[in-house]
Amino acid sequence: MSDMLKSFREYRAKMNQKLQETDNKVIKRIMNLDTNTYKEGALDEKTKEMLGLVSSMVLRCDDCIQYHLEQCHQLEITNEQMYEVFSVANLVGGTIVIPHTRQALEYWEALNEEKSQSSQT
Amino acid sequence: MSDMLKSFREYRAKMNQKLQETDNKVIKRIMNLDTNTYKEGALDEKTKEMLGLVSSMVLRCDDCIQYHLEQCHQLEITNEQMYEVFSVANLVGGTIVIPHTRQALEYWEALNEEKSQSSQT
Amino acid sequence: MSDMLKSFREYRAKMNQKLQETDNKVIKRIMNLDTNTYKEGALDEKTKEMLGLVSSMVLRCDDCIQYHLEQCHQLEITNEQMYEVFSVANLVGGTIVIPHTRQALEYWEALNEEKSQSSQT
Amino acid sequence: MSDMLKSFREYRAKMNQKLQETDNKVIKRIMNLDTNTYKEGALDEKTKEMLGLVSSMVLRCDDCIQYHLEQCHQLEITNEQMYEVFSVANLVGGTIVIPHTRQALEYWEALNEEKSQSSQT
Amino acid sequence: MSDMLKSFREYRAKMNQKLQETDNKVIKRIMNLDTNTYKEGALDEKTKEMLGLVSSMVLRCDDCIQYHLEQCHQLEITNEQMYEVFSVANLVGGTIVIPHTRQALEYWEALNEEKSQSSQT
Amino acid sequence: MSDMLKSFREYRAKMNQKLQETDNKVIKRIMNLDTNTYKEGALDEKTKEMLGLVSSMVLRCDDCIQYHLEQCHQLEITNEQMYEVFSVANLVGGTIVIPHTRQALEYWEALNEEKSQSSQT
Repeated sequence: MSDMLKSFREYRAKMNQKLQETDNKVIKRIMNLDTNTYKEGALDEKTKEMLGLVSSMVLRCDDCIQYHLEQCHQLEITNEQMYEVFSVANLVGGTIVIPHTRQALEYWEALNEEKSQSSQT
Repeated sequence: MSDMLKSFREYRAKMNQKLQETDNKVIKRIMNLDTNTYKEGALDEKTKEMLGLVSSMVLRCDDCIQYHLEQCHQLEITNEQMYEVFSVANLVGGTIVIPHTRQALEYWEALNEEKSQSSQT
Repeated sequence: MSDMLKSFREYRAKMNQKLQETDNKVIKRIMNLDTNTYKEGALDEKTKEMLGLVSSMVLRCDDCIQYHLEQCHQLEITNEQMYEVFSVANLVGGTIVIPHTRQALEYWEALNEEKSQSSQT
Repeated sequence: MSDMLKSFREYRAKMNQKLQETDNKVIKRIMNLDTNTYKEGALDEKTKEMLGLVSSMVLRCDDCIQYHLEQCHQLEITNEQMYEVFSVANLVGGTIVIPHTRQALEYWEALNEEKSQSSQT
Repeated sequence: MSDMLKSFREYRAKMNQKLQETDNKVIKRIMNLDTNTYKEGALDEKTKEMLGLVSSMVLRCDDCIQYHLEQCHQLEITNEQMYEVFSVANLVGGTIVIPHTRQALEYWEALNEEKSQSSQT
Repeated sequence: MSDMLKSFREYRAKMNQKLQETDNKVIKRIMNLDTNTYKEGALDEKTKEMLGLVSSMVLRCDDCIQYHLEQCHQLEITNEQMYEVFSVANLVGGTIVIPHTRQALEYWEALNEEKSQSSQT
């Protein structure tokens, strides 16, 4: 597993645990909602994860982007579909989204590589 | 046609025409890209318009929201699907998105009403 | 009651009702959380409403500002305290917050006037 | 004088006066700095006003945009120069800046018209 | 002292010194205002620092967050109070604030640990 | 060459190449526009690069800031002019821009040093 993927996942898991331990009701409910919102409903999971991703891109939140990239990858969104999500984000949000797209692409390629390595084993 | 829909469409059309008349190449290309980005590709038009809409909502641009609501409505996105787009926007963008959701819902209902009136004729 | 106060309150109440009627769980929970978050806890209600107000100001959401101004006014935050909230918002958020401060001040003065009129009756 | 120009100028002047009357030191100093920052220094006034304008556009603050448009107009920035400021704002900030550009163009044309009318008298 | 606290404080102090040395009047006045705004007035220092913190959180500025966390910690704001500030920021600003809350919590815990270590000596 | 300059330039070049290789038309056109927009027109290159810089500062995009700092440096914008661009960004965008100004100043000084070293050879 690439260092980038590993350190992101570990830090996120560790600190989410600590956020839960604050025992603050509002924070816990928001984190709970964060899981429920993306479940299949009138829209399928793929669409919802792409909605979450594009929102994170135009708001330029790298950690949020990486989280949704992970979900989109597991749901087997293709490279071409992903690039079209990137294109909407860059059009709507402008060139300030480009640096975040560079990082998103790097993360996406790491996810692709991780998958191709695990399938070779 | 409701006044809200009419005045939005007319002002937008008039001023887009004036933007074209500035004859500034960059502005014209951006407006041109704005049309092309949402065309069917690896993702279908519906998905792309919802991506444009949710981006506009978290960035809280009422005019952009209204434009994408019009497109989504023409593409026959259902009420339940639309409310799920709203829900992602409000979760990711927070309660500051609520006032824009109130306006979006009002606009969406005007589009529903316009359609039901035209189908009665 | 001033027209400004009246139209804000009526539109907000009407559309919040409609948002409830969408029957979308995520939207309903967010609206529910929006009420609970500001209840007295380790911090008192006054402090929490000022936190909500200053957040709305730096994010430049006029409707959110007006809502928290109403709450702050009911909790009897003084003019001088309110101006200090304004000052933090303008310092942190910069001069782009000034136009929203102009509107906030206008709304605040309408609330002051409404109160002085009702106490005269 | 067009109604748009008149109502913007009057409201702004009236409320700036009221902001001064709050007698809050921080607010008064920020408003004072707001005037001084754009004075000629290592950069000339034209350049500084265009910097203020493009910042207001990417942050999508209509009132701030209108204020800087007034200053740029008085400094005799040409239409072609103005459109290039618009183009940078739309490129950097993305298509969510378009609705604000539509309004900016409308305001700019009202300023052009006001000038041509006053020169005819 | 933890590396995180040390490197933040040293870099901030070094670069603030360099900002002063630019000898640009506007920059110096803004930095000066930045100190004065949070002094006790109609609101006490605790409230003002929490206002500065929540503003920095919804605007998602990690360095600004860390600065206000330091101030809040010195003013002996409790863990439970701090978590309620976090909760308002996450409600108003949405889930894009979560990654910044994870970092804020990590920094806050480092401040707690630093204090408990120094009191043991 | 300083490590900061080197790693920024290399990462940017490598990932821009990868963005081109996605072969997504919209992304390629936006990147193309990004180059053309700053070419001399009714406004000279210096002014346009400063417009790009100040926009990146108020939107708080460090990578975008560094890119425009490089361009401004090559166009021989002076230190005093640069500090005035910084001052407009901090006034309009508020104190949340200060941390980005600290980083911008550090990068700018690295560019100054690089130039003075190369001219000594």
